[in-house]
Amino acid sequence: MQAAKKYIYDVKPYVPGKPIEEVKRELGLKSVIKLASNENPYPPSPKVLAAIKKAGASVNRYPDGDCFALRKALAKFLKVGGSQLIFGNGSDEIIILAVKAFVQEGDEVIIAKPSFLIYDIACKLAGARIQSVPLRGFCYDVETIKAKISRRTKIIFIGNPDNPCGTYISAVPLESLIKAADPQTLILIDEAYFEYVRAKDYPDSLALIKKYPNLLVTRTFSKMYGLAGLRVGYGIARPEVIDILNRLREPFNVNAIAQAAAVAALGDQNHYKKLAKNMEEQRQLLYRGLAHAGIGFEASFTNFILIKVTADSSHVAAALLKKGVIVRDMSAWGLHSYIRVTIGTPAENKWFLKTLREVL
Amino acid sequence: MQAAKKYIYDVKPYVPGKPIEEVKRELGLKSVIKLASNENPYPPSPKVLAAIKKAGASVNRYPDGDCFALRKALAKFLKVGGSQLIFGNGSDEIIILAVKAFVQEGDEVIIAKPSFLIYDIACKLAGARIQSVPLRGFCYDVETIKAKISRRTKIIFIGNPDNPCGTYISAVPLESLIKAADPQTLILIDEAYFEYVRAKDYPDSLALIKKYPNLLVTRTFSKMYGLAGLRVGYGIARPEVIDILNRLREPFNVNAIAQAAAVAALGDQNHYKKLAKNMEEQRQLLYRGLAHAGIGFEASFTNFILIKVTADSSHVAAALLKKGVIVRDMSAWGLHSYIRVTIGTPAENKWFLKTLREVL
Repeated sequence: MQAAKKYIYDVKPYVPGKPIEEVKRELGLKSVIKLASNENPYPPSPKVLAAIKKAGASVNRYPDGDCFALRKALAKFLKVGGSQLIFGNGSDEIIILAVKAFVQEGDEVIIAKPSFLIYDIACKLAGARIQSVPLRGFCYDVETIKAKISRRTKIIFIGNPDNPCGTYISAVPLESLIKAADPQTLILIDEAYFEYVRAKDYPDSLALIKKYPNLLVTRTFSKMYGLAGLRVGYGIARPEVIDILNRLREPFNVNAIAQAAAVAALGDQNHYKKLAKNMEEQRQLLYRGLAHAGIGFEASFTNFILIKVTADSSHVAAALLKKGVIVRDMSAWGLHSYIRVTIGTPAENKWFLKTLREVL
Repeated sequence: MQAAKKYIYDVKPYVPGKPIEEVKRELGLKSVIKLASNENPYPPSPKVLAAIKKAGASVNRYPDGDCFALRKALAKFLKVGGSQLIFGNGSDEIIILAVKAFVQEGDEVIIAKPSFLIYDIACKLAGARIQSVPLRGFCYDVETIKAKISRRTKIIFIGNPDNPCGTYISAVPLESLIKAADPQTLILIDEAYFEYVRAKDYPDSLALIKKYPNLLVTRTFSKMYGLAGLRVGYGIARPEVIDILNRLREPFNVNAIAQAAAVAALGDQNHYKKLAKNMEEQRQLLYRGLAHAGIGFEASFTNFILIKVTADSSHVAAALLKKGVIVRDMSAWGLHSYIRVTIGTPAENKWFLKTLREVL
């Protein structure tokens, strides 16, 4: 059999975590909690469950390839034109489409380090030269990013807030970065966690799209809306940018149940905002618990926290796993004494704190 | 904003059909039947509906990125190793991954004409030189395909049975084609409709994978299993081929409900085989009805028929649409006097025949 294209062999295949049920079986544990993937810990709202059930009855039909109803509902909700939206099988698909559209062999991209791993993987597969810009104090180093911009820079990736650090770039430095970039360079602002941010200086990215033609904002229904299992995210940009991405999209990339559930979730704002508020209270409780136990952490604007475990994070994550608590070991991101922990339900958070104390 | 990579502009963006509800509203019709997308006309089985409902309750969690349970169930069902399988957001995703892995600018691919449009679109986006081989008597012209093989041929696409023609390549010519190709060339055998074929000389592609290292067989849960709306397909190949495709796959490409529904559908064989048998009876009834009305058609081994409408197919499809019957106009495939019609329920097929007679 022929060899695949070069670059492909340089990329480590993604090794997904095992299902909770498998972890239970293998470790002989009765209960396992997963605080590893920044998921909403609560099941969908009754309205969303009803939409799932209804849509389930006609999955023999292909999904609406244009996401007609979801596009209409989201355009109204965001006050943007329908032609400014593209939907994906999760927002990571939108990110990958952008790389596929604009980056070719030898092109440059700028990615913060550490950041969401998909930026790096997608760009490596495209043969891009990656300009890594280390975080400074767990925040994006905007000045160094500006200094790295060249005529070959095709995309600048901005996780805002960023995963795994949980911090954000505020409005003034973000706009200064956009101004510093060539108008030919795509600024991809990944707002997967934006619903959790309450800071007043958080950028209004939709207003920025009106001012600048070269922005693509990606968002998801996987976090606050709790639809990670259904895979639905979206991109917002000028219609010219959306049109290009649309040419690369698979015709039926967003499944029918995801579309129906997303429409229902958009219509159930009170429910989801209540959950987000609850998460915020739980985050404060975790901060206090960690501080009380003398454990360091980074303040976060998202539904997860970076926790400094001092010891080797791989050992700590493995010890937590043995006790039925799945967290993310940050060593793959180069943060060898950190774990990333998702804010769970009150009971999960208590259990996590107790278990972490035992382990450390 | 920068221009996208070349080739992208040469590809016409896919224009999906409108949802049935929209067609009803726009045309002021009370009932509309869709015989355009080769879907199973029946809702999922009770077992599948139960699986959808159950999986719906935990879509706040990411799907199993490795399709653990589905892989186990399908490997057992097909009697292949789990490492020989890759799952996709529909089998079109597997086709696109194969192009992404093996085809680069200037490479050659061989595609029958007409055939499934995704082969062509994916290869054009990769900058491939497409060697088109016209069908001969609505069948693949295996000898001409062999003659087109060169050292630069990266993929040969075989729709088996093919869409839109409904015919298949039997075992002997298929194996002669595999032998004629360089072992470095990937032979992609798209078996989206294989569950419908009852012919004894239909190739046993899983046995061929044991003999030849350069085969990739793609299949789907969208047709006989009636899960088109959920998006789940799979590829079968040697583990070395699967490993390459896996490196390009998005980590959570198959949604959680699709995985659960596919497992349930696999476990409900009697139900789905009964539907397939019913489809076959209906196909015979349609043949007789068409013959009786003096309308030509091509014999098919799938759940759809190519019908010769003599007149301009665009006009016929438009006239049928006005009367609430959605079929596929074949002019985009270069078959200007043909429409493609999916076998529906008995009532839908009767209505279609009646309406077609009125229109012609």
